[in-house]
Amino acid sequence: MKLEHIGIAVKNLETANDLYALLLGEKHYKTETVESEQVNTSFFKTGSSKVELLEATGPESAIARHIEKRGEGIHHVAFEVKDIYAEMERLKKAGFRLLNEKPKRGADNKLVCFIHPKSANSVLVELCQQITE
Amino acid sequence: MKLEHIGIAVKNLETANDLYALLLGEKHYKTETVESEQVNTSFFKTGSSKVELLEATGPESAIARHIEKRGEGIHHVAFEVKDIYAEMERLKKAGFRLLNEKPKRGADNKLVCFIHPKSANSVLVELCQQITE
Repeated sequence: MKLEHIGIAVKNLETANDLYALLLGEKHYKTETVESEQVNTSFFKTGSSKVELLEATGPESAIARHIEKRGEGIHHVAFEVKDIYAEMERLKKAGFRLLNEKPKRGADNKLVCFIHPKSANSVLVELCQQITE
Repeated sequence: MKLEHIGIAVKNLETANDLYALLLGEKHYKTETVESEQVNTSFFKTGSSKVELLEATGPESAIARHIEKRGEGIHHVAFEVKDIYAEMERLKKAGFRLLNEKPKRGADNKLVCFIHPKSANSVLVELCQQITE
């Protein structure tokens, strides 16, 4: 599996965009709102992987809940897979607890599935697969 | 800057190695102890970046303190730079708070410098540069 991106929960996307542009030496290259997840996102290129900043757009967003419980910071790490259905099946059989039964549409034109942090040393792991059609 | 690796704090490296081998579908390719930091580490290839698992070898280790305060989970994200001295200077001038004044020797044959999480939306950022000599 390839490390595709890390997701960072931030309170304010605009100020975080400025800060990460300064840190990484390069501006974000796109922003995207995922209505179903109630998040605004922005992406920075960092080699062959990415940094995704995530800001909640509503109180029910997983990002809002994360910030309420744990504050800002790294929210998840995402690994790219070639066949998300096969990987989900494999990991489920291996005892990992999946947070969604079927892949769902995430940001950046991807099918995604999350693995419960309790299954992975308190790391929220995302599997993602590029949507090609 | 290229995302070089993410560091994950774990209580027990052996069981975490088994778990991440199962998750990532591939075993770790090396282990290393960094005496000065009181950590045992192991590395997994994830595309052009890596996952580093970190286990404390003593109570003064930053990993032991992290686990005590926040539990297991993602500890830091590391970005590779070409000239760590120049980057440290640049970021210091830009207002980032560096946790070490000079680069120090880290795992994986690297010079490293950490940036205070307060400077980066509660993310502990590591800059690293391969030691070539």
